[in-house]
Amino acid sequence: MAQPISRTRERDDYLQPAAESGWRRRAFDIVFGDDTRIARAFDAAVIVAIVTSVVVTMLDSVAAIDARCGPALRAAEWVFTILFGAEYVLRLAVLKRPMRYARSFYGLVDLIAVLPALVSLMLTGSEQLIGIRALRILRVFRVLKLVRYVGAAEQMREALVRSRRKIFVFITTMLVLISVFGSIMYLVEGPEHGFTSIPRAMYWATVTMATVGFGDLTPSTALGQFITSVMILIGYGIIAVPTGIYAAELSNTLAQARAQRACNACGTRGHDADAQFCRLCGGALDADTN
Amino acid sequence: MAQPISRTRERDDYLQPAAESGWRRRAFDIVFGDDTRIARAFDAAVIVAIVTSVVVTMLDSVAAIDARCGPALRAAEWVFTILFGAEYVLRLAVLKRPMRYARSFYGLVDLIAVLPALVSLMLTGSEQLIGIRALRILRVFRVLKLVRYVGAAEQMREALVRSRRKIFVFITTMLVLISVFGSIMYLVEGPEHGFTSIPRAMYWATVTMATVGFGDLTPSTALGQFITSVMILIGYGIIAVPTGIYAAELSNTLAQARAQRACNACGTRGHDADAQFCRLCGGALDADTN
Amino acid sequence: MAQPISRTRERDDYLQPAAESGWRRRAFDIVFGDDTRIARAFDAAVIVAIVTSVVVTMLDSVAAIDARCGPALRAAEWVFTILFGAEYVLRLAVLKRPMRYARSFYGLVDLIAVLPALVSLMLTGSEQLIGIRALRILRVFRVLKLVRYVGAAEQMREALVRSRRKIFVFITTMLVLISVFGSIMYLVEGPEHGFTSIPRAMYWATVTMATVGFGDLTPSTALGQFITSVMILIGYGIIAVPTGIYAAELSNTLAQARAQRACNACGTRGHDADAQFCRLCGGALDADTN
Amino acid sequence: MAQPISRTRERDDYLQPAAESGWRRRAFDIVFGDDTRIARAFDAAVIVAIVTSVVVTMLDSVAAIDARCGPALRAAEWVFTILFGAEYVLRLAVLKRPMRYARSFYGLVDLIAVLPALVSLMLTGSEQLIGIRALRILRVFRVLKLVRYVGAAEQMREALVRSRRKIFVFITTMLVLISVFGSIMYLVEGPEHGFTSIPRAMYWATVTMATVGFGDLTPSTALGQFITSVMILIGYGIIAVPTGIYAAELSNTLAQARAQRACNACGTRGHDADAQFCRLCGGALDADTN
Repeated sequence: MAQPISRTRERDDYLQPAAESGWRRRAFDIVFGDDTRIARAFDAAVIVAIVTSVVVTMLDSVAAIDARCGPALRAAEWVFTILFGAEYVLRLAVLKRPMRYARSFYGLVDLIAVLPALVSLMLTGSEQLIGIRALRILRVFRVLKLVRYVGAAEQMREALVRSRRKIFVFITTMLVLISVFGSIMYLVEGPEHGFTSIPRAMYWATVTMATVGFGDLTPSTALGQFITSVMILIGYGIIAVPTGIYAAELSNTLAQARAQRACNACGTRGHDADAQFCRLCGGALDADTN
Repeated sequence: MAQPISRTRERDDYLQPAAESGWRRRAFDIVFGDDTRIARAFDAAVIVAIVTSVVVTMLDSVAAIDARCGPALRAAEWVFTILFGAEYVLRLAVLKRPMRYARSFYGLVDLIAVLPALVSLMLTGSEQLIGIRALRILRVFRVLKLVRYVGAAEQMREALVRSRRKIFVFITTMLVLISVFGSIMYLVEGPEHGFTSIPRAMYWATVTMATVGFGDLTPSTALGQFITSVMILIGYGIIAVPTGIYAAELSNTLAQARAQRACNACGTRGHDADAQFCRLCGGALDADTN
Repeated sequence: MAQPISRTRERDDYLQPAAESGWRRRAFDIVFGDDTRIARAFDAAVIVAIVTSVVVTMLDSVAAIDARCGPALRAAEWVFTILFGAEYVLRLAVLKRPMRYARSFYGLVDLIAVLPALVSLMLTGSEQLIGIRALRILRVFRVLKLVRYVGAAEQMREALVRSRRKIFVFITTMLVLISVFGSIMYLVEGPEHGFTSIPRAMYWATVTMATVGFGDLTPSTALGQFITSVMILIGYGIIAVPTGIYAAELSNTLAQARAQRACNACGTRGHDADAQFCRLCGGALDADTN
Repeated sequence: MAQPISRTRERDDYLQPAAESGWRRRAFDIVFGDDTRIARAFDAAVIVAIVTSVVVTMLDSVAAIDARCGPALRAAEWVFTILFGAEYVLRLAVLKRPMRYARSFYGLVDLIAVLPALVSLMLTGSEQLIGIRALRILRVFRVLKLVRYVGAAEQMREALVRSRRKIFVFITTMLVLISVFGSIMYLVEGPEHGFTSIPRAMYWATVTMATVGFGDLTPSTALGQFITSVMILIGYGIIAVPTGIYAAELSNTLAQARAQRACNACGTRGHDADAQFCRLCGGALDADTN
C-alpha cells in the first residue's frame, strides 16, 4: 500500500506516483514523502544544499572574497546547479502528471533554482554583462525552495486568510494617507528642500509613517515639521491596527483549535486546554500541537 | 418598489431618489446602489477613473515626465475633470434633497475632485503661480473618493469607537510626555546643538518616541544621550498600549459578533464559532463573514 | 448634605471640606467637585488656562516670536502665574487638612505651576542666567496639571499594575541585552568608528534595539554589521513582549469588568456583554462604559 | 530537616547540599536558598555587587573618567574579582556535586565573572593589548549573573516555549525576505550607490524591514525607492505577526493559569478570576500572582 503523504506539505493533485511499485515508486516516497528515515535524510540534504548554495552566491558578490577564491565559488556553483537539476528531473520522473507539478508553485521555484545558471552558460558568448549579473543574483531565489519545508504554518496562514478583508482595508487606508500626506509635504516643503516630486514625497511618507525614518529627506520648515509630527502620531496609532487584527484572529483560531481537539476513542470534543484524557471515556488525548 | 440601498455604504437621510420611476429613478439605482450588475460596473469605472487620475497628477509632478509628455497629462487631466464633473451633476440630479448630499462628507469630497481644476481655469489670467501649484496638487485628494468603496470596515470602526476614551487618554499622555521631554532636551542640549526652540525639540521628541528617528537632530552631550535612552525605553513601552487596547477591543468585538450569530429559521443565538447548523432546529447558519 | 466627590478623580484622605457650610463649603464643591455646572465650568477654565500658558512658554522659546512679541508673552506669563497662584491658595483654603494636599502629587504639581515664576522674580537681581532659563522652561511642567482631568484611565492603570512584574522582567532583560551588545560593539567597532566608550555604545544599542535608528553612529565593519543585524532581529522579536503582556492583561481586565456588571435592582452579576436588562429581574443595566 | 529550595529558581539536580548539617549545610541554605532573612540579605548583597561592578567597568571605558580616577576603578575592580571569586569557591564548596554546578548555565556565568580579571593578570607580562581590552570588556558579562534573580518569568517563558514553532516559521520567513529583497536591491542600486555586496545589502534590508532605518545606506534611484516602499509596507505588516503570536499565547496561558487555581483546603479548581474564597468550602484562595 502506498505510504500516506504528510498533509502539512504539498497537497495538490499532482501528488500521485507514476508507478505503484518499482524504483519510481520508492523514489517517489523518498522525494515527496517525509515519513521514512531515508525521506527525512533526503529533505535534510536538500535543505543543507539550498542554504550552502545561497551562502556561496552571497559570498560571490563580496569583491574581496571573489578576488581570493572566485574559481572555487564558481566550481561550487556548478556542483549545486547539477544537484538541483538532478533533483528537478527526478521529481518530474516519479510523478504521474509531471506537467501539473512543473506549473505548480513548488515546480516553478525548483525550476528557478537551475535556470539562471543554465541561461548564463548560453549567454557567455554574447557577453551581456548586466544580464549575467542579474542571473547570478537570481540564484539567491533558491532560498524560496525552503518554503516547502516550513510546515506548522497552517494556523498562521488561516489567521491571515480570515483577516484578509481587514488587511485590505488597512492597506487601502495606508495608501490613501501616504498619497495625501506625501502631496501636502510636496506642497509645503517643495523641490528646494528635496521633495522634488509627489512620488518622492510619497516614498518619504512611507518611510516615515512605518517609523523607519532614514533621514535622507527631512522636513526643514516649521510647518513641515508640525505636519510631520501629526503624521507620525497618526502612523503610530495605525501600527496598532494590523497587530490587533492578527492577534485577535490568532487568539480566536487557537481557541477554536483547542475546542475542536477530539478524543481518538469516542470522538468527544470541547476538552479543557490542559486536559490529558477524554472526560467521557478516559482515552488519552493527542498532545497539544500548536 | 425601490431597490434597498446597501447598508454598509452611505446611510444618510439624503439617500432618497428624486422620482419613483423614469430615468432619474433608474439613474439613482445605478449611481447610488450596488446590487445590480450595471451599478457595480458604474462603481468599478469610477474606481478606475479615481486611481488613474491620481496617478496622472502624481506623474505630472515629476519634472522628467512632465517635460516629455506634459500636454498629454494635462489633456487627461481635463478628461477626468469633465468625467467627475458629470458624475457630480448626475448625483445631484437624481436625489430628492441634493443640498443635503452636497453638504455631506461624500458630497464635499466629490466637489473637491472637480473644484481645483475649475478654479485653476479661472486663475490662468492672473498667473498666481503658487495658488495654481497648490490647486494642481489638491487633485490628489480625489483619492478620498475611494473611501466610499471601502466597506467591510464596520467591526474595525466599532472597535475604534469603543476604544475612543482609551485612545484619548493615550494621546494626552503622549502629548504631555512630548512636552516634558522636549523641554528638558531644549534645556540640556540647547540651541548650540540644534535644539533651537521648544517646538523644534518637541518635533524631535515626537520623531524619537514614535521610533522614527530621522537623525537630523541627535543628542550630543552625555546627559542628553542618557535622557534620550530613558525616553526611548518609555516610548518603547508605550507603543504597546494602543496595540493592546485595539487588540483587546477587536478580540471582544469578534467574540460578540460570533456569539450573536442568529439562526435564520428559529432565531436562536450563541452558536459555537465553528457551527454550521443551528443546534436547536438544524437550520443552516450564515457563513462567518468577519 | 455634602455632595459626593467623583470617585474617578482624587480619592485621597485630604478631600474633606474645611467647613460644612458657608463660602468655603461652596468653593470646595466648585474647586474639587465635578458634578455641578459651575464645578465643570471651573474645570474647563483651568484646562484652557493650562494649555494656553504652556503654549505661551513654548512660543517664548522661539527666537523670532520672542523678538516680535516678547513683552506680550511675558505679561501673559504673569497673568497665568497669578491665576494659578490664586487657584493654589484657594485649594489650600477650602480644605480641612491643607498640608496633606500640599504634600500630595496634585498639590506638588500645583505648586510647581507657580514656583518657577516666583523664584525667577527673586533671582532677577542676581542675574543667574542659566537658572532663569531653566525656571522659564520648567513652566512647561504645568502641563502635568492636566493629569488631574484624565479620568477613565482606571482599567488601563489596573492592567499596568497587574503586568508590573512582567514589565520589570522585560526591562531587566532589555538592560542586560543593551549592556552585553553595547560592550560587544564597543569591542568590535572601537573608538576609531565612533564607539568611544561603553556608555556611548549602550546609547547606540538602545537607539537601535528600540528601532529608532538615528544614524549618528552606525557600524562600519562587516562583523559589526552582522552583529547589528542579529541584535535588530532579537529586538524586533522582543518588541512583541510588552505588547503581548499588555494586550493579554487588558483583554482579561475587560472581560472581568463585563462579567462583574451588576444589576442595580437585584445585584445579579455575569450578564452577557451585550445584555441591556438583568436576566433575572429584568431591571435595566448600566451602559457598558469601558 | 533541609529547607526547601524555592522552585522558581535553580531546579537542576546539582542542588543538593554537601552535608546534612554543620557550616556547609548552613552556608548552602544562605547561598542557594531564598527563604531565610540572611539568605535574602546575601542575594541582595550579590545583586548590589553585580550592578556596581558592571557600572565600574562601564565608567572605566570613558576616557575622561579613566584619566581622573583610573587607579580607584582598577582597585574596585580587584575587590569585585576577589568577592566573586570567593562566592564561586563557596558555591562549589557547599554542593555535593560541585562539577555539575560548574558545568551548568549559572556555574559558567559565575566563572565568567572572575576569569577575565584572572587571565589579564597572567597576560600582563606579554602585553597583548587587544586581548586585555577584550578581557576588560568581558567583565560586563557579569550582568548575566542577574538572570538568576529574575524569577516570576515562568508564564512568559511558557508562552515563548509554546510559540517556538511559530517563531521559527516567522524567523525563516524574515530571513528569506531579507535575502530576496537584499539581492534585488544589490541588483537595482548596485555598488555605485553603496550597495557593494549582497551581505551589505542584506544588512540594509534587516535595518529597514525592522523599521530601524539608520540612513547610512539609502536608495537613490526611483526604482530602488519604489521597491523600498513595498518592502517597508510588507515589513510593517509582518511586525504584527510575532506580537500577535505572543499576545494570543500569553492570553491563553493567563486564562489557563487562572482556571487552574486550586483551593488549598479542598482542591477545587476553576474559580473565577476575582474569587477570593473557594466556592465549595469557603477556604481562602492564594492571591493571584501573575
